[in-house]
This record gives sequence, C-alpha cells and structure tokens, in this order.
Amino acid sequence: METVYFNGELMPKSEVRISPDDRGFLFADGVYEVTPAYQGRLLGLEAHLDRFARGLGALRIEGDTTAALAGVCERLLEANGLDDEDGAYVYLQATRGVAPRGHAFPVPSVTPTVYGFARRIAWWSAERWERGARAVVVPDVRWARADIKSIALLPNVLAQQAAVDAGVDDAILVRDGIAREGSHANLFAVLQGALVTHPCNHEILAGITRAFVLDIARDLGIPAVERPISLQDLDAAEEVFLTGTTTEVRPIVEIDGRPVGSGRPGPLTHALYLGYRQLAQSALPPTLVGG
Amino acid sequence: METVYFNGELMPKSEVRISPDDRGFLFADGVYEVTPAYQGRLLGLEAHLDRFARGLGALRIEGDTTAALAGVCERLLEANGLDDEDGAYVYLQATRGVAPRGHAFPVPSVTPTVYGFARRIAWWSAERWERGARAVVVPDVRWARADIKSIALLPNVLAQQAAVDAGVDDAILVRDGIAREGSHANLFAVLQGALVTHPCNHEILAGITRAFVLDIARDLGIPAVERPISLQDLDAAEEVFLTGTTTEVRPIVEIDGRPVGSGRPGPLTHALYLGYRQLAQSALPPTLVGG
Repeated sequence: METVYFNGELMPKSEVRISPDDRGFLFADGVYEVTPAYQGRLLGLEAHLDRFARGLGALRIEGDTTAALAGVCERLLEANGLDDEDGAYVYLQATRGVAPRGHAFPVPSVTPTVYGFARRIAWWSAERWERGARAVVVPDVRWARADIKSIALLPNVLAQQAAVDAGVDDAILVRDGIAREGSHANLFAVLQGALVTHPCNHEILAGITRAFVLDIARDLGIPAVERPISLQDLDAAEEVFLTGTTTEVRPIVEIDGRPVGSGRPGPLTHALYLGYRQLAQSALPPTLVGG
Repeated sequence: METVYFNGELMPKSEVRISPDDRGFLFADGVYEVTPAYQGRLLGLEAHLDRFARGLGALRIEGDTTAALAGVCERLLEANGLDDEDGAYVYLQATRGVAPRGHAFPVPSVTPTVYGFARRIAWWSAERWERGARAVVVPDVRWARADIKSIALLPNVLAQQAAVDAGVDDAILVRDGIAREGSHANLFAVLQGALVTHPCNHEILAGITRAFVLDIARDLGIPAVERPISLQDLDAAEEVFLTGTTTEVRPIVEIDGRPVGSGRPGPLTHALYLGYRQLAQSALPPTLVGG
C-alpha cells in the first residue's frame, strides 16, 4: 500500500481526496518539485525546497508550505520502504487551495493543498547509458515563465509524447532557432571542447542537476559558458546531453535521425556523469541535507 | 446541496473525489468549456460542445466524452434549481484520466475524467454596464496554443490577478505590440466605425460569443475585419469591448488609466450588446440546442 503526504499527514494514497474545486485541478495554479534519493539519501534537497519556496513566492501562494517538507520527504521514503533503495524520488506539489472557481486569487485566501509521494526509479544502467538517448526537435510552445516549475505542464506532456510518437527517448524544445531545454530536463552541448548551456532566465528552468553539473565541470577543469544554443550549435556539437532529477546526466547520441558527434556518448558527458553519480552516492545523510 | 456531474453520474459535490494521480491535477492535461444559460436555456451549447470535442481531439484525449454532455448540461441546471434562473452557466472539464505520474500519455490509455457543475451568475445590470469596465494591459505570457481551451490556466489567473491588484475589472493581454485577448474573453476595438478583432489562429481562443457578435454585426450592417489590434489601435479606438460566456459584451471605458473614446460605452458596443442579449433571451429551448 502506497503511503503519501496530504495536507500535513501521511496517509494511504487511497484516502487522499482532491476537491474538484482545487485550483490545481481547475487552473494548474501550483508548483511542484522532484528530489532524487540514492540509497535513501536525498540529493540537493535544500536546493529543491528553496526552488519550491521561490515558485510559491512567484505565484504568491501563501502559508507555511515548505518549512516541514524536508522531514516529510524522509518520512515518505521510509514509509514506502525506499530508504535503502538504489533509486527513488520524492514528488511534492502545492496548489493555491480549494475555492469556488474564479480566475483571480480567492478572497479571503485559502489554505494551500500540499501533496507528496515517493516512488522507486530505475536509473539507467551502464549498458543503457552507453547506448545513449535519441531525441527529436519540437517547437517550444510553453508559456513565457518556464523558470517557474508550475504544474501547467500540458506543453511538456505534448512534447514528450511527440518523442514517444517518433519512437525516441526525449524531445528538445526549440524556439526562435534556440534549443532551450528537453521536455523535462536541461540541455547541454559540447562545442570545441567547452560546455554550453542556456543561461538561467525566464526561458528555462534553473535545474538543480544543471547546477551540480556546472559545479562538477568547474572542479574537473572543463570550461563552461552559459549562452543560448542555436540549432547550428546543435548540429555542430561534439556532444549533447540532458540533465535532470530523473534524467541524471543523459547523453543524446542522435537528434532527428542524425548522429551527434561520433554517435556515441562523448568523453565530457561521461566524465560529468561519473562526477554526478559520485556526488549522488556520497550525498549527505538525510538528517543533514535539509539542515 | 450542490449537485455536480462526475464520470457519468450526477452526485452531491461532496462525494466527488479527484484522484491525486489525475492528470488534470498533475499536468493540466485537459480542456474545459463554459456555456451560459438564460432562464434555463443554454446559449450556443452545440458550438461549445463542438469546441470541447475539438480540444479533446487536439490533445488526443479519447473516449466517448462529449456525446451525452448536452443532456448533462440540462440535467445540471435542473438538479440545481437553475432551470428558470435569469443567469447561470454550466462548466464542463475533461482530463486525460488517472495514471501514475509520467509526462507521456499513459499506456494503455485510461478513461478520461469528466467533471461538470452549474452555477448561478449575476449578469451585469444596465446600470453597471453603463459605467463600463476598466482594464490594464499586461504581457501575454501564455503558451503558443491559446486556441486550445486547456485547463493550464495559470497565466490567465496571474493576468486577472494583475487586474485585481490594479483595482480594475479586466486585463488585456499584449504580446509583440499586439493586444490579443482579455484574461478570459476576446477583445474588440472600433476603429473609424469598423469592428476590429484578432483573427482566429493559435494566438487566441475562437470564442463562441465572439462569433455571435460577428454574426450580429453582420446583421446590423456594422463593418467588421479580423486583423491584429496593435497598441496604437487600442490608443486610437473609439470603442473597446470584451466578449465571453460570462462577460457577455462588456464595454472597456478605461485602459491603464486613460479613457477609451469618450470614456463611456460607445454606440456600436451598445448595439451589439443589445443584439446579444436579444439572442440570449430567445435562445432555442434546451431540447433543440444540443440537436
């Protein structure tokens, strides 16, 4: 039986009852966060909860929503027997709450709805990783605030489905000739030996894994620049990869049927993946991460 | 006690239980429709259900979702004592359904979640109408498929809240110097005696009330052209108004603190409003509308 978190309590998932008046259900008026856990150790939990709080702030969703959530994440892992699982993640979502339907914020304000669950995840094996991922390019039709990790994910759903329809693993979102992100991951290219990734502005999500990878690159002495990646860059790239909580560091070896570089995962992608896995395996014990 | 529709049945709202795995709650993966009722007569129900079906088609949400809904709308009005109410509307929403979280469409596909309710609405009185509405201009940050009436309404929520924050009634969404829509209504301007409204493409919702108003204009011999409305047009306009299911035909008399035309509802807006109210009052009996 799955144990989830709902409005302050752990409970069986079957007992959760989302109101049809929940503004998450009617308006996508909320944000979410996904934190990975390796052997029960939550990686980057503080950064994830910070981003969650910033998203709630951007939407002016009030209430003491994030304070207790570090502990909740640990309890969700434990309650679901995931506390020594190789791979798991904790999902958290907060919406503005329950109110009769109307676009503007409810007056008086209502209590946010907070929901969370933990789930096992099979990280890609070494063999799978070596084969790499194939991707298609799709138009980025998202709203202009991709920096807010909102639950208004319909464009991301359609992008990922376009990848599935094409028989590949991932979609690369392109707008105005710029490759911004994957459908739910950040995008990196290697150009003349240097990492290139889109700067953190309103056009992309400021990924936690993205930030880890930039840190690792610095430690490894790999040059990195934050600038937009054009379609021409994508064509010319020696390596391309995605980063994300459930994606880790994932090599893209083929885009729209054409090989990237040699058509196999490249050396920088490999080095960064190893650095990330090392970080993940040595993540601080859960009692310290939320600290 | 409010009676709502949920997955095939009328029931008390308190008995509706949306799953936290509903893709409406997690991904905004669904569409909705709002149909007005005047003295229990649903106006434009067929057009609304057609658009609902087109939206479901665009998202590839399957299942026999719309066939029975004309009857459902009537039953919702009746069950809630709204069948001779001066003003009411019926809200319908369908999401892709319930499945463990993952961006791509669930495989095998799941049954859509269909939810509906009916509510009383107070149309603007003649006195309120004569005072008109005030609006602010806000950036249009919506996704690139505003033609799909999706529940991913977070940008619309934020736009309408910007209007509330400014102490006015409505927001006008502007992108690339073009005034596209209100936060939940279509936009018209009167320029040199002719109606101007944005053409129906991916940038706006093809409003049912918008179409009624264009029909009425034709009947009244008012010239109309479908082309983008620039900010310069908005400044120069003799009249500006919004159209929508719950908005009807609503004069905008002030934008960002500056009067529109004379600062009072203009003659064409008035004529179109009267024409619309006439149509609404004489709407076909519900048994014929869904025909």
